[in-house]
Amino acid sequence: MAEKTIPYKIYLEEQEMPKAWYNLRADMKNKPAPLLNPATKKPMTAEDLAPVFCDELIAQELDDTTPYIEIPEEIREFYKMYRPSPLVRAYCLEKKLQTPAKIYYKFEGNNTSGSHKLNSAIAQAYYAKKQGLKGVTTETGAGQWGTALSMACSYFDLDCKVYMVKCSYEQKPFRREVMRTYGASVVPSPSETTEVGKKILAEHPGTTGSLGCAISEAVEVATKNPGYRYVLGSVLNQVLLHQSIIGLETKTALDKYDIHPDIIIGCAGGGSNLGGLISPFMGEKLRGEADYRFIAVEPASCPSFTRGTYAYDFCDTGMICPLAKMYTLGSGFIPSANHAGGLRFHGMSSTLSQLYDDGLMEAVSVEQTEVFEAAETFARVEGILPAPESSHAIRVAIDEALKCKETGEEKTIVFGLTGTGYFDLFAYERYNNGEMTDVIPTDEEIAASIAKLPQI
Amino acid sequence: MAEKTIPYKIYLEEQEMPKAWYNLRADMKNKPAPLLNPATKKPMTAEDLAPVFCDELIAQELDDTTPYIEIPEEIREFYKMYRPSPLVRAYCLEKKLQTPAKIYYKFEGNNTSGSHKLNSAIAQAYYAKKQGLKGVTTETGAGQWGTALSMACSYFDLDCKVYMVKCSYEQKPFRREVMRTYGASVVPSPSETTEVGKKILAEHPGTTGSLGCAISEAVEVATKNPGYRYVLGSVLNQVLLHQSIIGLETKTALDKYDIHPDIIIGCAGGGSNLGGLISPFMGEKLRGEADYRFIAVEPASCPSFTRGTYAYDFCDTGMICPLAKMYTLGSGFIPSANHAGGLRFHGMSSTLSQLYDDGLMEAVSVEQTEVFEAAETFARVEGILPAPESSHAIRVAIDEALKCKETGEEKTIVFGLTGTGYFDLFAYERYNNGEMTDVIPTDEEIAASIAKLPQI
Repeated sequence: MAEKTIPYKIYLEEQEMPKAWYNLRADMKNKPAPLLNPATKKPMTAEDLAPVFCDELIAQELDDTTPYIEIPEEIREFYKMYRPSPLVRAYCLEKKLQTPAKIYYKFEGNNTSGSHKLNSAIAQAYYAKKQGLKGVTTETGAGQWGTALSMACSYFDLDCKVYMVKCSYEQKPFRREVMRTYGASVVPSPSETTEVGKKILAEHPGTTGSLGCAISEAVEVATKNPGYRYVLGSVLNQVLLHQSIIGLETKTALDKYDIHPDIIIGCAGGGSNLGGLISPFMGEKLRGEADYRFIAVEPASCPSFTRGTYAYDFCDTGMICPLAKMYTLGSGFIPSANHAGGLRFHGMSSTLSQLYDDGLMEAVSVEQTEVFEAAETFARVEGILPAPESSHAIRVAIDEALKCKETGEEKTIVFGLTGTGYFDLFAYERYNNGEMTDVIPTDEEIAASIAKLPQI
Repeated sequence: MAEKTIPYKIYLEEQEMPKAWYNLRADMKNKPAPLLNPATKKPMTAEDLAPVFCDELIAQELDDTTPYIEIPEEIREFYKMYRPSPLVRAYCLEKKLQTPAKIYYKFEGNNTSGSHKLNSAIAQAYYAKKQGLKGVTTETGAGQWGTALSMACSYFDLDCKVYMVKCSYEQKPFRREVMRTYGASVVPSPSETTEVGKKILAEHPGTTGSLGCAISEAVEVATKNPGYRYVLGSVLNQVLLHQSIIGLETKTALDKYDIHPDIIIGCAGGGSNLGGLISPFMGEKLRGEADYRFIAVEPASCPSFTRGTYAYDFCDTGMICPLAKMYTLGSGFIPSANHAGGLRFHGMSSTLSQLYDDGLMEAVSVEQTEVFEAAETFARVEGILPAPESSHAIRVAIDEALKCKETGEEKTIVFGLTGTGYFDLFAYERYNNGEMTDVIPTDEEIAASIAKLPQI
């Protein structure tokens, strides 16, 4: 039987879009460890979490048994503005590499926030609005999440306060302007607007901030202001749930053309994109229906999976958030300022951590100069300027395709292209000028940071 | 009979993409006036044009009788990387405006060059390659065209030299880096690398450049270097021909859902987007098969149609290019530095000029503060941050939709959303800070510039 001709871009019809998110935890035998209350060290209850998070999102966070959770109509309407996203056959990249491998990527960058983050931002804004809140607070590093949340809040007419890591705030003024265009207020972190910010500034004058510190500030503001809650763009189970739309669409598109992927690759910072992309495929693997190789790609400068430890840790520098069991480099770990783009979180999604610990997933770390080399190759042949984060996945997809070239295997590789690099040209400029270098933390640095983990 | 449900985004299938460009001039009774040789004042022959342009493009430039010109296979393959582009039903904007009007936009911004310019860039690069050239030269103002050409040249492995108007080069370093990532060399104009650049610098020390001046430099370099030709991103007939793909796809998508537009709106700088969008619809109007209102929208700071004169003029400041008959403000006219974005060319496509002169098309001019107000409204409800250029069309589409609200008419409005504003955040910042102003040229300024038109 003749193979169906596969177009460059597979677009689903609107009516083929998923109507429910898939909750991978429901199919996990070893469930991810629960969040712990930092005071009592006991599992966080919905009541414990209520001052920080929206009620409905807490329910999703704690639900590890319901396999499908309906996507509310209002969110599905918003999704239609920029979804379904295309699954692209990388014909030009295959040709460039002269590989027998078949390469596909799910492209999540075709929306103004420039990344997949909007998938969860709109869900979180919706539930905040439904609860009758005035607004939400959050942190942003590279700026993708902050931009996505600004767009989502503007749509539902919610106030949005973003604590932006100071070095990004200064290096990416245009990200800030996009957020302002969507009506958000953006504060460089650490700031004098919070107690935790003041404390950090007193202890580390001149610090350019970190994600963990910005989280602490955003949480403080949410808990001190009536009508506000805190929202987070990665790491949490609820975020992976919302991001499952990436994997569900990918699977529907592949199934339409009878394509069975061998390897599925995603970059991993907190795990939102990777967790979303692999969800339905990992579900099949857990249920014994199919097998796949999953590869998490992280930066060598922030290697939570490959050099971290699996333990309970704080999610933030101020240590005011719940404790999560995860692969972590320690909440005090800050990647070198030399590191470009996102993927700078010290920890990792609890769900993905458990899967990795159970040997269901692989992880590799890559250095940023080789990442930008892959980014440039990709941009030139596929016509999309990728975000540095996404380019980690490109790097490993190319490496796997080149292995196929050596062995002659016709493997099918799928990777997540999470976003575009329009706001990362400062980093591209360094690369173009030959000024980009790699800085890898020493064993001593990582050991020192891990030594400070809380005792559970 | 029940109306078909119209999705948020109408995507054509790959096989529905046009296989030929439509040459509107073939259906025009009053043909656009020919280019004239600046020395002899006689119509330019293919031989006259050969030192500047690629042979096949010259043939397309001079052909005003062949209605359809086949799109070569290699170009169609490249188009598949980012086309077909979506025709979007602006449900959210309609709701926001509470208008009975039905609004659609053809979105050309979902490619890394960020605009429709890639449609012609890839065609021009293809013909240059086919002719065995080493490379091409061009100018760029806001940077969309330069970026598009860099991508196209990288794809066909051609050298690409871009003369970038100096004020843009300095205000938009990131545009420059995208071009460099695609392997182009980018020179701020005026420069010391050309005779015409040196002359302009001597006469106007400290000038921040203009499009007309950058054109002169690029043409000089093309004609003095063996194996190089000059390419242009707008104004020319060949460019409108390539851009007809926008209109052809739009028409196919509308026809699929039995939608008949009443008003078709596009921004107009040199006319490439507007000319491409309206082509097949204007063809129907010229052949008496259907009627439409066409509206060209131009900035009040560079009002070629609405305040210019219809006459032969130079396309460049150095007066080395052929003379074109067009609506013009005079080749010495430079819009206020306060003007954001592109649409700064002093003249206009000869084809569109003839259609406008024949009363087949309307034109309006709008001020930039009202343009950015429309841009912000649009970004907030439609989730796309528009380029300033495209936002001129949004402004008038909104105005027309609001007129429908008053009269209760259910008109169908289609406009061209040519690109995204990721590289225009300097201008958005000025708007967000309330620092943006309008500067409109005085009658005296325009009269003085027009007084210097060549005598034909």
